[in-house]
Amino acid sequence: MTDSITAYRQTFLAHLSQVDLPETPKDLYSPIQYILDIGGKRIRPVLVLLSADLYGAGVEEALPAATAVEIFHNFTLIHDDIMDAAPLRRGKMTVHEKWDTNTAILSGDAMLIEAYRQLEAYPPEEFKPMMNFFSKTALEVCEGQRFDMDYETLDQVGIDQYLKMIEFKTAVLLGCALRMGALVGGASPADQEAMYMFGIQLGLAFQLQDDYLDVYGDPETFGKQVGGDIIENKKTFLYLKALELASDEEARELRDLYSIKTRDPQAKVQRVTQIFKSSGSADAARDMIRMYTNEAFQQLESLKLPEDRISILKEFGEWLLNRNF
Amino acid sequence: MTDSITAYRQTFLAHLSQVDLPETPKDLYSPIQYILDIGGKRIRPVLVLLSADLYGAGVEEALPAATAVEIFHNFTLIHDDIMDAAPLRRGKMTVHEKWDTNTAILSGDAMLIEAYRQLEAYPPEEFKPMMNFFSKTALEVCEGQRFDMDYETLDQVGIDQYLKMIEFKTAVLLGCALRMGALVGGASPADQEAMYMFGIQLGLAFQLQDDYLDVYGDPETFGKQVGGDIIENKKTFLYLKALELASDEEARELRDLYSIKTRDPQAKVQRVTQIFKSSGSADAARDMIRMYTNEAFQQLESLKLPEDRISILKEFGEWLLNRNF
Repeated sequence: MTDSITAYRQTFLAHLSQVDLPETPKDLYSPIQYILDIGGKRIRPVLVLLSADLYGAGVEEALPAATAVEIFHNFTLIHDDIMDAAPLRRGKMTVHEKWDTNTAILSGDAMLIEAYRQLEAYPPEEFKPMMNFFSKTALEVCEGQRFDMDYETLDQVGIDQYLKMIEFKTAVLLGCALRMGALVGGASPADQEAMYMFGIQLGLAFQLQDDYLDVYGDPETFGKQVGGDIIENKKTFLYLKALELASDEEARELRDLYSIKTRDPQAKVQRVTQIFKSSGSADAARDMIRMYTNEAFQQLESLKLPEDRISILKEFGEWLLNRNF
Repeated sequence: MTDSITAYRQTFLAHLSQVDLPETPKDLYSPIQYILDIGGKRIRPVLVLLSADLYGAGVEEALPAATAVEIFHNFTLIHDDIMDAAPLRRGKMTVHEKWDTNTAILSGDAMLIEAYRQLEAYPPEEFKPMMNFFSKTALEVCEGQRFDMDYETLDQVGIDQYLKMIEFKTAVLLGCALRMGALVGGASPADQEAMYMFGIQLGLAFQLQDDYLDVYGDPETFGKQVGGDIIENKKTFLYLKALELASDEEARELRDLYSIKTRDPQAKVQRVTQIFKSSGSADAARDMIRMYTNEAFQQLESLKLPEDRISILKEFGEWLLNRNF
């Protein structure tokens, strides 16, 4: 399975390197080239190609949709990094650090437009539903980012609010990728919808896994700093669930730890990690990941696809959720 | 003529007030509502309606395109105001001042997507060329803004570079508005192109007029501070042309005046205004405005429209360029 993912990724990267950005104005387009070049897992474009391929479309035909989704994703990274004042992205300087905030705003804008333009490769009858769906998803991603910002200053965030936020901020774009691939492949509306729902559930599992790996990941293979969410007092599932499950005393301690900027982040990470474990929150996260994965797989039951093709999607899901990077 | 502009504007405003933005997340959508509510001349949507109407489409049919263009224009205002660190827009607080920069970035993004979504009202065969053209224009507007930013720090800016910048930053969107209206109205490709070119030339005249009014406008009717461009050392046509036409001594003085942040802006505005006059730059600007207006009107010769309809466009052009607001 990872072989076919690697193959899709290679095909996509070869195509991406051919995408022709204008030379000038240099400081509009070179930041776009920069963020596209610094890598990433390329999960979203791989999902587009995989999905189109399952329905028998040539991978070639799905490349513009894959590119649109990846460019859109990277646009959100540029703007999110400004909002988070993040210095690094994938170990490299963020665009607003390497250039400046105004450049990051404007190149991000141009990138959103470039994402739309990729879809011009499709004929009108395919183009329109694709655009409608892409715009709907793009707006939801903005809403997800807004919820994320709102929750930073909110005292009480419910688990359901958190799940809604990660659904919009992360999961819908995975669903969109799968659905656009299915659309290119000529899948029925019912199959497109099931692929979308598969992507949503898988996306929820994927983000919860990300939260989990942030705490319990292997520092050798996890791309980011382990414990980073704890140091930044991010109200992840692990934190919110721990507050729900922990004893009053531990919950108070956890709230205290999250209310201060500590001078000893290692001690804080260690203690918070203990509370996540002792409260049962870490186990609850594993359970949720498993539950969403199962729900994702259930979506596949209804697909009008041969069993061996459905198993490719399941293998992809397993691979994604057993990753340690 | 101004009656019919008023009528188009009223129709548009009635439609705009019906555009349904979601309630939540509140801080994503209320800044969008805010910027759309604080007014403006609404020239772009009026052009869409006017153009569609000339070709016999119902104004009703052109409203989504008019709304897309106006929402897009206001998106650029939100992001430009961040980049310019502008405290006020149309006499009201800018979005990044009233909320914060992150909110202005994100609501701007959502607005760009909302602009695209307005076009979903059109059937696939109309939707696609409209989207292609809209995206092309949107990207050019970003390029124009980038050139504008680049020129701030550039020592020597040529008149041709300046004209290219205002063409992209301002004129193409006027052209796009007219062309989209023509498209909705079922104009031939040749007529769409002529309407576009009419808009470009008129847009150039319009922006030069804006530069001119910034210096020579009536403080009572001009919406902005007269002399604002001079105080901010903006390299407008008047400035660049004055450098070209003035004596070495006056050119040196002008450069000096533009290289300092003065404590007496009134004296600076007064002296620079004198140099614009004495060098012949102010007259050259008037000539250029007239030239672009004539070029715009020449574009109309080829239109497959009855003479009385063409005269409506001419009257609109005259009105736009004789405005003092």
